[in-house]
Amino acid sequence: MSKKLKFTLLTFIAFAFVGTCFANETQSMSKLDQVIQVQQYFRAIHIMAMLMVGFGFLMVFVKKYGRSTITATYMMVATAIPLYLALTGLSIFNIQEPDINKIILAEFSAASLLIASGAILGRLKIYQYIALGVLFIPFYVFNEWILFSGGLGLIGVGKMIDTGGSIVIHTFGAIFGLGAIFSLTSKKGYKTEIESDSTSDRFSLLGSMVLWIFWPSFCAALVAPPDLIRTVINVILALSGSTLATYFMSVALRKKVSPADIANATLAGGVAIGSTCDSTTAPIAFVIGALAGMISTYGFAILQGKIQKAIKKIDTCGVLYLHGLPGIFGGLAALVVVNGIDKKAQLSGIAITLFIALASGLLVGKIISFLGKKTGIYTDSDELIID
Amino acid sequence: MSKKLKFTLLTFIAFAFVGTCFANETQSMSKLDQVIQVQQYFRAIHIMAMLMVGFGFLMVFVKKYGRSTITATYMMVATAIPLYLALTGLSIFNIQEPDINKIILAEFSAASLLIASGAILGRLKIYQYIALGVLFIPFYVFNEWILFSGGLGLIGVGKMIDTGGSIVIHTFGAIFGLGAIFSLTSKKGYKTEIESDSTSDRFSLLGSMVLWIFWPSFCAALVAPPDLIRTVINVILALSGSTLATYFMSVALRKKVSPADIANATLAGGVAIGSTCDSTTAPIAFVIGALAGMISTYGFAILQGKIQKAIKKIDTCGVLYLHGLPGIFGGLAALVVVNGIDKKAQLSGIAITLFIALASGLLVGKIISFLGKKTGIYTDSDELIID
Amino acid sequence: MSKKLKFTLLTFIAFAFVGTCFANETQSMSKLDQVIQVQQYFRAIHIMAMLMVGFGFLMVFVKKYGRSTITATYMMVATAIPLYLALTGLSIFNIQEPDINKIILAEFSAASLLIASGAILGRLKIYQYIALGVLFIPFYVFNEWILFSGGLGLIGVGKMIDTGGSIVIHTFGAIFGLGAIFSLTSKKGYKTEIESDSTSDRFSLLGSMVLWIFWPSFCAALVAPPDLIRTVINVILALSGSTLATYFMSVALRKKVSPADIANATLAGGVAIGSTCDSTTAPIAFVIGALAGMISTYGFAILQGKIQKAIKKIDTCGVLYLHGLPGIFGGLAALVVVNGIDKKAQLSGIAITLFIALASGLLVGKIISFLGKKTGIYTDSDELIID
Repeated sequence: MSKKLKFTLLTFIAFAFVGTCFANETQSMSKLDQVIQVQQYFRAIHIMAMLMVGFGFLMVFVKKYGRSTITATYMMVATAIPLYLALTGLSIFNIQEPDINKIILAEFSAASLLIASGAILGRLKIYQYIALGVLFIPFYVFNEWILFSGGLGLIGVGKMIDTGGSIVIHTFGAIFGLGAIFSLTSKKGYKTEIESDSTSDRFSLLGSMVLWIFWPSFCAALVAPPDLIRTVINVILALSGSTLATYFMSVALRKKVSPADIANATLAGGVAIGSTCDSTTAPIAFVIGALAGMISTYGFAILQGKIQKAIKKIDTCGVLYLHGLPGIFGGLAALVVVNGIDKKAQLSGIAITLFIALASGLLVGKIISFLGKKTGIYTDSDELIID
Repeated sequence: MSKKLKFTLLTFIAFAFVGTCFANETQSMSKLDQVIQVQQYFRAIHIMAMLMVGFGFLMVFVKKYGRSTITATYMMVATAIPLYLALTGLSIFNIQEPDINKIILAEFSAASLLIASGAILGRLKIYQYIALGVLFIPFYVFNEWILFSGGLGLIGVGKMIDTGGSIVIHTFGAIFGLGAIFSLTSKKGYKTEIESDSTSDRFSLLGSMVLWIFWPSFCAALVAPPDLIRTVINVILALSGSTLATYFMSVALRKKVSPADIANATLAGGVAIGSTCDSTTAPIAFVIGALAGMISTYGFAILQGKIQKAIKKIDTCGVLYLHGLPGIFGGLAALVVVNGIDKKAQLSGIAITLFIALASGLLVGKIISFLGKKTGIYTDSDELIID
Repeated sequence: MSKKLKFTLLTFIAFAFVGTCFANETQSMSKLDQVIQVQQYFRAIHIMAMLMVGFGFLMVFVKKYGRSTITATYMMVATAIPLYLALTGLSIFNIQEPDINKIILAEFSAASLLIASGAILGRLKIYQYIALGVLFIPFYVFNEWILFSGGLGLIGVGKMIDTGGSIVIHTFGAIFGLGAIFSLTSKKGYKTEIESDSTSDRFSLLGSMVLWIFWPSFCAALVAPPDLIRTVINVILALSGSTLATYFMSVALRKKVSPADIANATLAGGVAIGSTCDSTTAPIAFVIGALAGMISTYGFAILQGKIQKAIKKIDTCGVLYLHGLPGIFGGLAALVVVNGIDKKAQLSGIAITLFIALASGLLVGKIISFLGKKTGIYTDSDELIID
């Protein structure tokens, strides 16, 4: 009964917000500009493939929780996008963009949410993922507003270099997720090993590849046509760098290769090149990618075990090592790589993001834990009808 | 021997039709118009992904029939597209479009065929799926000709509002399939439970996500650049609406969530928004989607069992509940939503589609059943070489 | 220790080459030309989907080697693309193209590499696949240079008709792979049966469908807008032809249908239409595709067993039957189909490709075998950490 109330409440909130979003009339623009908008739409579709099959299936490596993960992905995407549109359409915050850009920005917020959820995967009921989305998006919008729209007057507009979202998307999501695990790791959950098998691994690697394939469109989604091809080449080379580096690091650190490294750290180049994807050159992009792959693999192979033991908390998908550290590295790399960068603004942006993400993650984790907390971890049979 | 004859006959028909289709010379058009055509081609590729990995893998939920389903999908797509091109290229019917539009229309016909096949999945031999395609497409073209090209003088050109095919694609396919099950459900088949497992479910959810991702391109495939972005936003919001509604309805009606609801009813918003995708606004699109998700989930959770018991026939994939009811709802929603709609034409179009689809489905089901009918249901080992 | 040395060496080579590749400045071009470049980029993304999820997952049919296959695919793509860019950027060879074309050409080289690796799949360690890439790409570039850039003065520029790479991509890769198996098939490996199961088959069919879906973009990647739509229609019809032909041939030759035929030979139309995709008409494309499907299915059903027995070597994925024979057939079909073709140039191009591919395949296979050779075949547990 109280559960149904919660459902009703959450639905109400989601619907109410959405009811306020309105279709912008297409401005009268030239035929050529319309064509350029349509090209952005194709990138928006690519990003949608990343959200659903990419992030969604990457998380399917948990053998007994695959169908729940996919269901949760569906719900988070369907919560984040309308909610982001509603919040920014309401003009509460100072983000004003023409139509298709707003869809892309909404997808970015969904990506960040999915990253955050990776840290606590398996420890929420499905409706709690929806609640997570409802609570996450306002903080995400708040941080984005400070970094890019001069919100609170902290960072000048255009000073923060983060085209593909190393900081605003990846780092924010990862650190938010880290904050949330503090209230959402039970003792029993901490001790339960996460099992994967040959099939769940292959699905996860499928998700990983879909992310790899469309990553150039993610980074270049808002880049104007003259810079687009260079951006795309940089992203492809960064991913190539992290892919090769992951293999060599994984062998070096573990003797054998971990499929989890291949599924995750190969993508670290895409995470790290986000900040500088449109402002660097191909060889530097390759090097940034290779270093990010090394950092990420080191994270999965060495740090993850140590940190989890130290804090007695579980980061299910290791989002700190795929999105957190490589994201911060990417944001910092801009200091070295981009000529004439406003270093104070860049460092402030990173610090603010870390602070807001951690604080809001801690808070939201606490709130979500009030809605109910499993002593162990969930499996598909807990919430799904399985014959 | 008689089987080989059938093969030969069918191949002959397919090849003969195809031999008649010819490459239209590219008209001399401006560079910008060529670019716009290429953009339609990208949407055509998106739709192809929906046909193959989308519809194909959505049906892979049947555990012991997955490889046969994929094989059948291959064959139906390869039959429908050349056949549609041949039939409309012959100008027997009054459908004249420039090149790439015709490919898109051919893909639409393949989508409708795949929907129809979903109702009888598992009860045909592979070559019977090809025969189904050969027999289905002419009726599909006939209905399309009446609705959009003034065929038989029943509906004025441009009067039927159905841009994304709620009626002409989804409803037609679903009702045709329903007609076909009457001759193609055996007593034993009716009693055999359809099994799925964790892996077949994950494949099915993958197919579902691919449909979700590319659905905006499906609805907007023939929409001109100025209206395209609005259409796309409407479709994304309709899908978000049905996705959230599916979860809440599934929990409300079943206590636990059914993976089949998640794989199917989440897409009902895409089905229902088809008619009005380019003529409504974002909040209305969200509401149409949410209602369609409720209708669809109610169909799967409550109606499917009752109807199957009443008529003693099996609709394997539940196409009535994903494509039939949400499609009809979408077509009717246009009456309320679209200003200045010709209500008589819209209602006539829906009624004509229902009639032609049911009649031709009953007829074609009968014909197919003459080619052979299994007493139970097929599994992969019946027709495939499996070690 | 010596292994680590090898790693270091290989990494060094890869990184060194890459360091030499540089970002071309975007030339000042009109807004419309930029838009056309962006459209090529979308095709480049489609090809990336083919490389990763397409070729990668097609090879996942080997049940116990799926995760290794995916890992190897990652490594080969990440090796081939930067290396191709580096080699051609250095202007050692006479291939000069604007940016995005070069990415597409690099992807083509990766496709050819993946095809070659299919012949020896399961008999290399992961780092040997990287070595394979490092050694393959220079020969590929050499052959491409002769065929299309007048290298060594053997074939006039523009005389070789091979837009979609039937010869330069598919035949080259397949024959190179065939050459390599001579040094890389052990006696025990020859006798070990390659196992697949229901799940590995479904993954393989998924890869196959992804190849089918995006094949039009592969063939049309470098085609200019005015010819693009015709090219796309030809490719779709060729694939439809091979898909239908595969089914009928598979039933005729084997009684039951082989899932391997469906996963592979359905694509033979795409391989064979490569040469003539932009210079023929739709009905001829359908016929070329149908014939290629027959050739390919005949290869898998009849030739593969005979040839393997005769030479006592294993072609793991049967690349001779999907890429080799249909590729050669496609190259030869141009002689009949294309008006005013320079027959001597076309035949020379095919002969040169066969020679270079076989010779370099034999040589590289030998070199790779010096790095280590398994007595049997590898499985996932040999190199991956599997719980």
